[in-house]
Amino acid sequence: MNWDTRFAHRTQQMKRSTVREILKLAVRPDVISFGGGLPAPELFPVERIEQAAETVLAERGREALQYSTTEGMPELREWVAARMSRGSFQIDPRNILIVSGSQQGLDLVGRVLLDERDPVLVENPTYVGMLSAWKPYELDFHAVPTDDDGLIVDALEPMLRQQAYKLMYSIPSFQNPQGTTLTAPRRRRLAELIVEHDLPFYEDDPYGELVYDGEKMPTVLECEAAARGTTSIDDCNVIYAGSFSKIMTPGLRVGWIAAAFPVIDKLVQAKQASDMHASTLSQYIIYEVIRDAGFVENHIAKLRQVYKGRRDLMLQTMAEQFPEGVTWTHPTGGLFTMVTLPEGMNAVAVLEESVKHNVAFVPTDSFFIGDTGHNTFRLNFSNAREERIVEGITRLGQVLKEMLVKA
Amino acid sequence: MNWDTRFAHRTQQMKRSTVREILKLAVRPDVISFGGGLPAPELFPVERIEQAAETVLAERGREALQYSTTEGMPELREWVAARMSRGSFQIDPRNILIVSGSQQGLDLVGRVLLDERDPVLVENPTYVGMLSAWKPYELDFHAVPTDDDGLIVDALEPMLRQQAYKLMYSIPSFQNPQGTTLTAPRRRRLAELIVEHDLPFYEDDPYGELVYDGEKMPTVLECEAAARGTTSIDDCNVIYAGSFSKIMTPGLRVGWIAAAFPVIDKLVQAKQASDMHASTLSQYIIYEVIRDAGFVENHIAKLRQVYKGRRDLMLQTMAEQFPEGVTWTHPTGGLFTMVTLPEGMNAVAVLEESVKHNVAFVPTDSFFIGDTGHNTFRLNFSNAREERIVEGITRLGQVLKEMLVKA
Repeated sequence: MNWDTRFAHRTQQMKRSTVREILKLAVRPDVISFGGGLPAPELFPVERIEQAAETVLAERGREALQYSTTEGMPELREWVAARMSRGSFQIDPRNILIVSGSQQGLDLVGRVLLDERDPVLVENPTYVGMLSAWKPYELDFHAVPTDDDGLIVDALEPMLRQQAYKLMYSIPSFQNPQGTTLTAPRRRRLAELIVEHDLPFYEDDPYGELVYDGEKMPTVLECEAAARGTTSIDDCNVIYAGSFSKIMTPGLRVGWIAAAFPVIDKLVQAKQASDMHASTLSQYIIYEVIRDAGFVENHIAKLRQVYKGRRDLMLQTMAEQFPEGVTWTHPTGGLFTMVTLPEGMNAVAVLEESVKHNVAFVPTDSFFIGDTGHNTFRLNFSNAREERIVEGITRLGQVLKEMLVKA
Repeated sequence: MNWDTRFAHRTQQMKRSTVREILKLAVRPDVISFGGGLPAPELFPVERIEQAAETVLAERGREALQYSTTEGMPELREWVAARMSRGSFQIDPRNILIVSGSQQGLDLVGRVLLDERDPVLVENPTYVGMLSAWKPYELDFHAVPTDDDGLIVDALEPMLRQQAYKLMYSIPSFQNPQGTTLTAPRRRRLAELIVEHDLPFYEDDPYGELVYDGEKMPTVLECEAAARGTTSIDDCNVIYAGSFSKIMTPGLRVGWIAAAFPVIDKLVQAKQASDMHASTLSQYIIYEVIRDAGFVENHIAKLRQVYKGRRDLMLQTMAEQFPEGVTWTHPTGGLFTMVTLPEGMNAVAVLEESVKHNVAFVPTDSFFIGDTGHNTFRLNFSNAREERIVEGITRLGQVLKEMLVKA
């Protein structure tokens, strides 16, 4: 059979993700990879998870291995709801849907909200995983200008006045791929615009806890509730996506969506049809680990300390080793910095050269709306150990210097 | 915000699944539920899984908790490929995609193959989980007539001559909800038709190992390979879906798709955008358990023995307790029998009465194409223990008798 003639129209839109393909390179132990958005495996609480698995299987094994409700484990939903509640802004467990990793949040929200060719607001560059989830809808993406402080909210206002948008998507904290963060005043102004223009807003927040400088920012959801003077998420337009991948481990595939109940209700139905529910055992293990609040806070503190050290080391090594004309962002948290090469230089060509020297990263052209960003790439600083950061960045600096001389 | 005005068009097609809603009833311990397709939790190899979790986390913990490839754990793909290979028909691991439960197989194949309003062939009644996964495509379903031996393949032939179909969907072994099984001669003839009419075919086979009478049937995939005289699945039109939910445990959410490589290649891309990959830990645990071939065969033998006993007991109690005019199927394997009430009697009304007596089941009208099947329901015989089967079926018989008298 010639399958090409049988695939659906939307299948033509599918492209293998550069990030995932590069991840495959990264499994060779001699490659120093700054590619994937991988947390540091040596910081995984493996023993704690082993104990939790033992407890869960010994005490509630049959339950933890059986089919369970699509909405998610009740205790885990309660934990998430309590953790997201602030003062009088209390979130109810019915507003929480447990998803099979936050990528699934994107997939489900796309299915529930997006019609073909809907106009959608995004940062540019934006998260490539959102683009692959939503590309089948052939959306009309509109890029909101950004600077070192994230979205330029003043530039958003005239856009909102000009036309209605179906949805806005953003990673306000430690954006992927740029590493930039929306300031608190901009968050408050953004929230006012969300209210004023009745704009649905997807707040993707997998890295929010990984703060290295200053305080954790209020979420856009919290700002919206404050702007509205409401105590209920049911009044809010923000659909918030959180994840255990970065604060615990990604291999368990557990994240969550917090949103107004009518949205959760539809997402549950979409999830039922999609994969029934997230792994019951994964949910039980995570809950068993995180129910100890002291452990979670200590673990996050440890991640912050180590990742901050790696960020500092990477930025310092880049400053020492990268040639003039190459610039990069200065993230205050998260996992990434984005590098910009001199105009006309191609990041994929740099990658090709760089892998010959066993160093990998992710060219970010596929994160851009429009045919641009070919001179940019993303570096992850959380995954590689300190000595490999120095070694890898030094080699990459060498490659860049040689290519700049030739150019 | 009035979310109803913001949802996508396809969201209007979404309906909560009866099966899932009934499952919620079933969690009250005083309810005897024949509702969900739940395996018997007392047969879960909990200790074995506990050992496996311990081994995996102690020996490969960091790997088992990290992001992994979309295609699935290489060793698990190899195991599945080897288990599905027969003589010269050898399946390669590259033809296997690990999915997050076989429901995800339906979702992904829908995305990759189905365009809006495509004509698709199905049994009637057919699996409601397929209907919810594929309803957004507003497919043009064509029902192939069935009898106690499954699809009437001779009735399929003229349908195939009349028009082209995008896909055919079937559960050939122990169908959900009917419990019926396609005979070996019909499988061979079906395979010939698949070849002759170049028909893509989705073989959903979650229950295939649960055989209580006679031998395990050859899969339609094997029959197609034989009909073509090929040794490679790359030449085949059958997309085969298998699952660990019924032979191991469903809560780990691991299944697989076996298909020609061009199909797998597109499914991988769809899965990437959907949830990145199935739980790494779930895959590692399952592999650790099943790599011991002796254990798997013993475990399946044990399931067969217990479920056969429960099927016999349920059918016998039904024969004793159900009133005249009520009929049901006689499954030779799997989890279900389907009951047909006298014409005009409504299964949902029976359920409403029955839950007052703490007995639950699934009315199957939502499994039917067209507004029919209101007098049918599905009984699961794998989940409830023997004494509860007798008690529940007796109570249900009483409800049926009383309702028949009133009617």
